[in-house]
Amino acid sequence: MVPPGDNMERDVCAACGFVDYKNPKIVVGSVVAWEGKILLCKRAIEPRKGYWTLPAGYLELHETAEDGAAREAREEACADIEIERLLAVYSIPRISQVQLMFRAKLVRPDIAPGPESEAVALYDWEEIPWPDLAFPSVGWGLRHYRETKDRSDFPPFSNPADGL
Amino acid sequence: MVPPGDNMERDVCAACGFVDYKNPKIVVGSVVAWEGKILLCKRAIEPRKGYWTLPAGYLELHETAEDGAAREAREEACADIEIERLLAVYSIPRISQVQLMFRAKLVRPDIAPGPESEAVALYDWEEIPWPDLAFPSVGWGLRHYRETKDRSDFPPFSNPADGL
Repeated sequence: MVPPGDNMERDVCAACGFVDYKNPKIVVGSVVAWEGKILLCKRAIEPRKGYWTLPAGYLELHETAEDGAAREAREEACADIEIERLLAVYSIPRISQVQLMFRAKLVRPDIAPGPESEAVALYDWEEIPWPDLAFPSVGWGLRHYRETKDRSDFPPFSNPADGL
Repeated sequence: MVPPGDNMERDVCAACGFVDYKNPKIVVGSVVAWEGKILLCKRAIEPRKGYWTLPAGYLELHETAEDGAAREAREEACADIEIERLLAVYSIPRISQVQLMFRAKLVRPDIAPGPESEAVALYDWEEIPWPDLAFPSVGWGLRHYRETKDRSDFPPFSNPADGL
């Protein structure tokens, strides 16, 4: 039914009136650099187990976007990062996700696989395993990072027009 | 309990294993200009009924951030807007919200109160009813808009350091 004052169909409990609002999810992550190399994580879990991704995951309750991105780098790559600025906001409406991707750098080069990673690595740009990236937005983030790595004043990117 | 592969307490159904992940919510909105004036909406609903706000609200499922911000301006002010760029990302961890605020302009000056607004108005900067703004982030968005209204290349703002 459409709750009073609303304009969309929602699941509403006929007994108590509880409205089960379903909301898009926020993914926070980062493109993390160390001396020109970029941190990638090989996924140890589905979906896309065995493919490479940027450290990223769901924002938790009571967490800022920046804190969430730093936590994900810690959890997935045991990496201590410093957030520089917002690189991009990608909307993935098919799966109701908004991804906030930051540009960051490693505080020290120590990295190690966390429980969700089979491996972690610092890749030179030329070595990035493009065919083995886990998700399209991983490639978007890497390319947008590359386009602006020596600039600080630019609007954040959104999804590339070509979707690739 | 902590579900397998997770590292935080979640509500889990003992019968079927369903994990009730609770997630932060995404608010999308905009600072909308027309000939130097700024669109504000007087809230017709709680919380903060009678106070002035920027057109903003919860992102819906299967919606991009930009489409959501345009929808909110349409719903709250019957306004047809053109999004220019992302102005700010505010994190409100106390209430588990991330707010994506865009800079936008009216396509035409026709505005009218939608069901959630008592009134809508285009304010000159000097006329903005500062003591009657609905939420702190409304003031943040207005001041960040003002700081950068003649610039296009700047990183999006996050919460002001002073919280005011």
